[in-house]
Amino acid sequence: MLINSTFPKSFASDNHAGVHPAILEAIAAANTGDAPAYGGDDWTAVFEDRIRAEFGPSAEGFAVFNGAGANMVGLALMLGRYDAVICPSSAHIATHEAGAAERLLGVKLITVPTPDGKLRPDDITSRLGGIGNPHEVQPRVVSISQVTELGTVYTPDEISVLARTAHEEGLFLHVDGARLANAAAFLDCELRDITTDAGVDVFSFGGTKNGALAAEAVVVLTPSLTAGVPFLRRQSLQLASKMRFISAQLSTLLMDGLWRENARHANAMARRLADGLTGLPGITIEYPVESNAVFARVPTDAATELLKRYRFHYWDEKAGLVRWMTAFDTTEEHVDEFLDDIRKAVGS
Amino acid sequence: MLINSTFPKSFASDNHAGVHPAILEAIAAANTGDAPAYGGDDWTAVFEDRIRAEFGPSAEGFAVFNGAGANMVGLALMLGRYDAVICPSSAHIATHEAGAAERLLGVKLITVPTPDGKLRPDDITSRLGGIGNPHEVQPRVVSISQVTELGTVYTPDEISVLARTAHEEGLFLHVDGARLANAAAFLDCELRDITTDAGVDVFSFGGTKNGALAAEAVVVLTPSLTAGVPFLRRQSLQLASKMRFISAQLSTLLMDGLWRENARHANAMARRLADGLTGLPGITIEYPVESNAVFARVPTDAATELLKRYRFHYWDEKAGLVRWMTAFDTTEEHVDEFLDDIRKAVGS
Amino acid sequence: MLINSTFPKSFASDNHAGVHPAILEAIAAANTGDAPAYGGDDWTAVFEDRIRAEFGPSAEGFAVFNGAGANMVGLALMLGRYDAVICPSSAHIATHEAGAAERLLGVKLITVPTPDGKLRPDDITSRLGGIGNPHEVQPRVVSISQVTELGTVYTPDEISVLARTAHEEGLFLHVDGARLANAAAFLDCELRDITTDAGVDVFSFGGTKNGALAAEAVVVLTPSLTAGVPFLRRQSLQLASKMRFISAQLSTLLMDGLWRENARHANAMARRLADGLTGLPGITIEYPVESNAVFARVPTDAATELLKRYRFHYWDEKAGLVRWMTAFDTTEEHVDEFLDDIRKAVGS
Amino acid sequence: MLINSTFPKSFASDNHAGVHPAILEAIAAANTGDAPAYGGDDWTAVFEDRIRAEFGPSAEGFAVFNGAGANMVGLALMLGRYDAVICPSSAHIATHEAGAAERLLGVKLITVPTPDGKLRPDDITSRLGGIGNPHEVQPRVVSISQVTELGTVYTPDEISVLARTAHEEGLFLHVDGARLANAAAFLDCELRDITTDAGVDVFSFGGTKNGALAAEAVVVLTPSLTAGVPFLRRQSLQLASKMRFISAQLSTLLMDGLWRENARHANAMARRLADGLTGLPGITIEYPVESNAVFARVPTDAATELLKRYRFHYWDEKAGLVRWMTAFDTTEEHVDEFLDDIRKAVGS
Repeated sequence: MLINSTFPKSFASDNHAGVHPAILEAIAAANTGDAPAYGGDDWTAVFEDRIRAEFGPSAEGFAVFNGAGANMVGLALMLGRYDAVICPSSAHIATHEAGAAERLLGVKLITVPTPDGKLRPDDITSRLGGIGNPHEVQPRVVSISQVTELGTVYTPDEISVLARTAHEEGLFLHVDGARLANAAAFLDCELRDITTDAGVDVFSFGGTKNGALAAEAVVVLTPSLTAGVPFLRRQSLQLASKMRFISAQLSTLLMDGLWRENARHANAMARRLADGLTGLPGITIEYPVESNAVFARVPTDAATELLKRYRFHYWDEKAGLVRWMTAFDTTEEHVDEFLDDIRKAVGS
Repeated sequence: MLINSTFPKSFASDNHAGVHPAILEAIAAANTGDAPAYGGDDWTAVFEDRIRAEFGPSAEGFAVFNGAGANMVGLALMLGRYDAVICPSSAHIATHEAGAAERLLGVKLITVPTPDGKLRPDDITSRLGGIGNPHEVQPRVVSISQVTELGTVYTPDEISVLARTAHEEGLFLHVDGARLANAAAFLDCELRDITTDAGVDVFSFGGTKNGALAAEAVVVLTPSLTAGVPFLRRQSLQLASKMRFISAQLSTLLMDGLWRENARHANAMARRLADGLTGLPGITIEYPVESNAVFARVPTDAATELLKRYRFHYWDEKAGLVRWMTAFDTTEEHVDEFLDDIRKAVGS
Repeated sequence: MLINSTFPKSFASDNHAGVHPAILEAIAAANTGDAPAYGGDDWTAVFEDRIRAEFGPSAEGFAVFNGAGANMVGLALMLGRYDAVICPSSAHIATHEAGAAERLLGVKLITVPTPDGKLRPDDITSRLGGIGNPHEVQPRVVSISQVTELGTVYTPDEISVLARTAHEEGLFLHVDGARLANAAAFLDCELRDITTDAGVDVFSFGGTKNGALAAEAVVVLTPSLTAGVPFLRRQSLQLASKMRFISAQLSTLLMDGLWRENARHANAMARRLADGLTGLPGITIEYPVESNAVFARVPTDAATELLKRYRFHYWDEKAGLVRWMTAFDTTEEHVDEFLDDIRKAVGS
Repeated sequence: MLINSTFPKSFASDNHAGVHPAILEAIAAANTGDAPAYGGDDWTAVFEDRIRAEFGPSAEGFAVFNGAGANMVGLALMLGRYDAVICPSSAHIATHEAGAAERLLGVKLITVPTPDGKLRPDDITSRLGGIGNPHEVQPRVVSISQVTELGTVYTPDEISVLARTAHEEGLFLHVDGARLANAAAFLDCELRDITTDAGVDVFSFGGTKNGALAAEAVVVLTPSLTAGVPFLRRQSLQLASKMRFISAQLSTLLMDGLWRENARHANAMARRLADGLTGLPGITIEYPVESNAVFARVPTDAATELLKRYRFHYWDEKAGLVRWMTAFDTTEEHVDEFLDDIRKAVGS
C-alpha cells in the first residue's frame, strides 16, 4: 500500500495532507480498553471542557465526523419548515455539499453574489422583503464562512455587525468554520473573538483541514438552541459510536494552541507562495491572501504545464483561475520548489 | 485523560471496545504525507480490490463513517419517492436511528413483528396487497439485519429464499450488516455465501463493532444501483475527505481474515457466557445465542446488583430482559469473572 | 358526459356522492365579480367567524382542499425534525395517504394496533420509553381519527382523557376529523364538545364527505400553534387562490346546522342497513355501527354476487370483511333495495 | 355575504376574477348523483380524452387542485435525490411557492438571472459544469414558465431550442403553464405547438387564472414518466376525491376553444391598457406586453394615488415597478376607467 510518489507536495487541498503526529498519538493514547459509546466517555468530557475554556462557559461542543455534517446539524437547530438561509453564492453549503441543505434540511438557500465571498449587512437587509408573506420562504439564519471559500477573512467587527443586523431582524448567525483556525491565526486573535464575542449563535469548528484525521465540532453559543443537538446529530448520521477517538482529536487541537500553530504555519506558506508570485508575468492574485489559499489567474499554457507535475484545481477554468492551498505540513521547500516550477512555466 | 477504571469489562456493547492494534497500525501506516482526498487515494483502491476479492468482481464497496450512514446510503439507492421498506419491527433502521429513514429518505418502514428478529418470506408476500394502489406506499425494498438485533443469524438458505421472494415481486433485498462478520463466523461460511451468493442487492458491512475505529462500507452487488452512490454518500454527509484512513481500516479487517478472527472470538465469548448461565436459578436465555449477544431474563434483584459493577443495558426492563454483548477484546477471564458475579447475584 | 347508470346507489364511499344543493348554490352565489385572492375575501371572513362561533373565540380555521392536506398542515404545526406521532395502526395518515407523513413531514408514525380503531391512554404512555434517548424519535403528537377508520366514535370523555394524558407528557392531541360531523351527530353533541372542550390542540374538519365539493378545514385551538399555518398551507400546496369558493362551502355546512343534518341522515341510513342485516345467515357486523359505515363479514359467494351490481369495497378480502358506507344522499329506498339484494345473495 | 364593493375591477391578479359561467354550469351539470371517487368517473375520462385531442395521443393529463401542486407533481416525476432544476431567478417555483420545491421535493433550484424572465440555451449549458462531480447537485430538469412571471412569451422555436439543448445534455424540459393559454393566444398557435411539438416533457396547464374555480392539470408527454403520477399526486395532497368536479372544469376550458377565448380577451385588455399608457408622463412599460400583464414604472405619487382606489401590486416597490393584470372578465370599460384615473394620477 504505497502512495503514488511521482507527485510533489499537493497544492490542491488541505485535505490532501495527512494527520498531525500529535493527533495520531492522541488517538493511540485513547485506545486503552473500554469506554462508553456515543460520548459518555472521558475524552469527550475533556473535549467539552476545552470548548468551554475556549469559547466561554455557555458554549456547548458536539463532535461530528465532517464539515458538511457539522453545517447540517448546526443549521438544523435553527430552521423550521418554511425558513430560509441567507448566504453568499460561494458558500460551501450552497455549492459543494451535494444539495444536502435542500435534501436533508428542506430549506431554500437565498444566495447572494459577493465580490470576495463576504456577506455585508445590506446583503441581509435587502433580502427580507418577503417576511410575513406566506408565498415566500422566511429568512431565519444568516450563514457565513470564516475563512470564506475565496480565502478571505471577516474581522471581528465585521462579524459583530452581521450578528447585530441578523439579531435585529430576528435571524440567527451561523458560521461555517471549517477553517476557523486559519481565520483566527490570520487575525492574530482568539477564537472567541470571532465567535462568542462577536455574537455568533452556532458555528462549526473544523479539525480535519487543520491536521485531524476526521473531526469537526458543532458549537452552540445560544443556549436555547442546544437541546436538539443530540437528536439531530444522531438523525443526521453524525454520531460516532466510539466517540472518544473523535473527541481526542479535537481536544488535541484545542490544547496548547496546536490549532493556531498549524493554521499559522499553513497561512504563512500561502503568504510565501503569494509573495513569490509577485511580478511574475501573466500571473495575478485574485483575492486578498488572508489564509491558506491563493487564488491566482495563470496563463493557460503555464497551468497546463504545472498540472503535469502538481496536484491543484481550477476554480474557474474558463477564467484561468486556479486555487492553490497550503496545509499544516507544507514546507518552505515545497513552496519554493513550486515557485521555481511556476517561474519556469511562465517563462520567467 | 484517563478512563474511569472502576468498571470491569463492559458487556453493554461491542462499541465500548477500543480499536484492534492492527487497525491502529494501519491508520498510522497510511499517514505518509499527501494523498488525494475523497477516495482518490491508493488505500481506497486497495479497499475496493479487497471488496471485489471477498464479494466477487461485480461488488463495489464505498467506505462511510458509521452504520446508520451505511444503511441510509444503501437504502437510498433503491427507493423512489413513494416507495417503502419492509423490515422486522426490531430493525435498527426502525428503532435506533432516530427517524433517519423517515426524515432523510422520506420513506415509510413497514414493520413486521417477528419472534426472533428474523423475517420470513410470508412476512414479505403478506405486505404487498397495496401494490398499484395510489393511496398506499409501494414496497420496494426488503431490509433484514444479519446478525439481527436479537443476536440471531440467517442461514445462507434463508437469505436466498428471502432474496428470491423479494425479486419475484420486483423488490430489492438489503442487508444491514453491522455485524455481518459475526454471522459469517457463526455460520463458518464465507461472507459471500450470505451476500453475493444468496442474492442480496445491497448491504452494509460493519467494521466499527468488529475492531475498527469508525469504518463501515456500503457494498453494492447489483451493478445498476451503483451510479448513485458517490452523490448520495456526499449528500448524506458520509464522504470522508481523508478517506485513506477509513479505507485502511476496512482493508485491514478484510486482509488475512482479521474480520473472522475478531468475530469468531467475540462469538466464542458470548457462547462461553451463555454456557456458564446454564442452570443458574432464575436466569433463562431468551434467543438462540448465535453471535456475540446473549439476551437473558434475569431476576430484578440480581440485575440491580450486577449493574452496580458492570456496564450493560436492559433490552426490556419490564420483562427483566437484559442484553449482554461481547467484543473482539473480551477475554475468557472477563467472562468468567462476570459469571462469578452473576452466580453470586442470583445466590448460586 | 353521462355517468354510468347501470349501477344503483354506491355503498363504496361517501366520496361517491355529489354535492349538496345548498353548497352548489353557495358557490354560485360567491361568483359575483372580483374578490381578493388567497383568503382576503369576505366569504373567508365569514368562514372564520363561523369557526369561532362553533369552536370558541380562540379557534382559528384555515380552509384547504382535501383531507390529507388538512392532516399534513395540521400535524406540521406541531412537529419538529426528530418528533414522532403516536396513532392507531388503522389511521388514515398511516395507511391511505401514500406516505405523505413520512415524505412531506419526515416523521415516523408510531402505530399502535387497536381492536376498534380507538386509541387508549395506555397506548400513549406505553410508547414513551424512548423520550430523551437520542437514538429514538421523540413522540410529540397523538393523532386520533374521529370517526375512526372503522366507523367507531370516541365519546367526549374518551377524548378528554387522551388529551389530558398527552398534555401531561408534553404531547399535543390532533384529531383527523374527516368525518367529525358524523361523530357529533352520533353523539348528539356539539362539535365543540369533542374538540375545544375536550382539550384537542389541532384538528381537521371535513366537508367533502359531508356534502361539499372539495373543502376541509384545519382548525387550531392552541393559539401558540397558529402562526405557522399560512406558510405551511402555502408550502403544502393547500392554498386556494380563489379561496372564496372553498370558504363558502364550509360556511354553508356550518350555517343552520347543515353539517348535522347531512351527517345525521347518513348515520341513520347506516343504522337502517345494519338493522336490516340482523339475523341474516352468514352475515355478522364487525364493529359497532356508530357513524355512516357498516363493516360486515359476508359469505364470499354473496359478496361476489353483490359486487356484480353494487359498488363497495372489501376492507379485508381474505377475512370476507366488507365496508358499506352511506352518504347524505343515500335514501331509505337505496338501503332497502340493497338489503333486498343482500337477502337474496345470502339465500334468505 | 357581500363583497366589498368600494373597489372597481381589480388589476392585481387574474386570481381576483370569479368563475366563468360555462364552468360553473359544468360543475352543476356534473352533480348528478353518484360517481366513483378519485378519477374513476366519466367526467375524468372525458378530460383525459380532451387532453389527448389537444396534445396528441401520447399525452396523459392528470387533474390537480392548484398551480403549485401541478408544478410539484410534474417536477417530482423527473427528479432523483441529488438532481437539480435549472430555472430563471424569477420562476414561480423559486419565488412564490413558499419553498415547496426544496421542502417537498428536496431539490436545489439553480436560478439564472434573466433580463425578461426567459431562459436561453446558454443559460442551460453554462450550468452543467458540475455534472459527474459528487460534491455538486446534478442538473436534471430545465423548468421554464410560459407565460413567464414577467408576462413575456416564448415562441415555439425558442421552446424547441431549449428542449433540444436540454435533451442533448440528458435533461428534461418542464413548463409551468399556469398561463399557457395566454401564451398560445398571444402566439395565435395551438397549445400543442408550444408543448408536444416543441419537445416539452412535462408541463402544467392552468385553468384557475383562465376562468376555472380551482383546476389545473399535470400533462405528461414523455410516456416513460407517466407511471409515477398517481402515487405522487396522492402523496402530494393533490388528489381530489370528487374529481369529476375538477375534471369538468378543465374539460369545459378545453372544449370549443373556451381556453383561447378567455385568454385572448384577457390579453386584449392588457394590450388596450398598455396602448393607453403610451406617452403618459413618467410611465414606462418595462417588459414587452405579450399576455395579460403590464409591468410599468409609475411615479410614486401616482401609484400611491391609484392604490387608494384600485387593487394592484408593486412588483418592485423601490424601483417604482407595478404589475397590472387583466382577466377573462376585465372589460373595455374597466380598462378605460382605469386609464382615466391613471391619466389623472400622473397629471396628464
